[in-house]
Amino acid sequence: MASESSNGRMIVVAVDQSEESLHALTWCLRNVVGKSNGDDENTKDTLVLLYAQPPRTVYPSIDGTGYLFSSDVTVSMDRYAKEMADGVTARARAVCSNNPRVKVETRIEVGDPRDVICEVVEKLGADMLVMGSHGYGLIKRTFLGSVSNHCAQKAKCPVLIVKRPKQ
Amino acid sequence: MASESSNGRMIVVAVDQSEESLHALTWCLRNVVGKSNGDDENTKDTLVLLYAQPPRTVYPSIDGTGYLFSSDVTVSMDRYAKEMADGVTARARAVCSNNPRVKVETRIEVGDPRDVICEVVEKLGADMLVMGSHGYGLIKRTFLGSVSNHCAQKAKCPVLIVKRPKQ
Repeated sequence: MASESSNGRMIVVAVDQSEESLHALTWCLRNVVGKSNGDDENTKDTLVLLYAQPPRTVYPSIDGTGYLFSSDVTVSMDRYAKEMADGVTARARAVCSNNPRVKVETRIEVGDPRDVICEVVEKLGADMLVMGSHGYGLIKRTFLGSVSNHCAQKAKCPVLIVKRPKQ
Repeated sequence: MASESSNGRMIVVAVDQSEESLHALTWCLRNVVGKSNGDDENTKDTLVLLYAQPPRTVYPSIDGTGYLFSSDVTVSMDRYAKEMADGVTARARAVCSNNPRVKVETRIEVGDPRDVICEVVEKLGADMLVMGSHGYGLIKRTFLGSVSNHCAQKAKCPVLIVKRPKQ
């Protein structure tokens, strides 16, 4: 599907709800996407905007309280997760909308971001992975930082980690 | 010196004696260097080929054996280090020699690669750092891998880590 109309590179951009990931996408559009040496003018890169949706924690179906795990709550959680995924990918698509040099696809996969990102990169045979680096709050940084560290080591293609802009 | 004749981006490429770092440089020349969106045809990126020369271990000047630390030996060690630095930068320059889209500079700095790379990036206000990822031997990988991890977290610009080619 991706490579039918273009012979450019396939670049996976990991997107999430953070400003950092939007910045990484913008930086990629400005600095990486476009003509690579040797390509002709009509060659288009394909950007795959990948959102890794964290899996819903699985609770036992029967529980002492009968409250937290009611189907109403799980339906709400699922709806929220879907809205988040749709919102993130729509926002990322909007950032790309004015760039005629790329073909854009979106992809939502459920799972641990570290695994999801590396698996999709490998499955697609991507030429490059782009992701943000998170800089706020120690706990969030500790967790999210480990995603980019993990992918930088494990992903089977070059990895570009884009820092948040200087304040 | 760097920006007098070009208003393109400044890209620091960390080079060393490994094939991986040459591959990273080649990949960068093919996939990153060139027109970034919005630039005109005459804009050239500047590549700074940076070799971090490990510092010579400082031994006490007087030693029980009087052999290992003689001035002959230290002179030889210094000469070897200089030849290595010159060889690495010359080889990297040769890789860039046929690319008219870049202006190339070389820089040799003595110190721990992790510190040297981040310091030079910050001092130059680089737009991007490119480095290889090493894949051979566990010990070497453990050590060198930590250089790219460290820089991915600490360098004050986007960091591109390029894997060695698939076998």
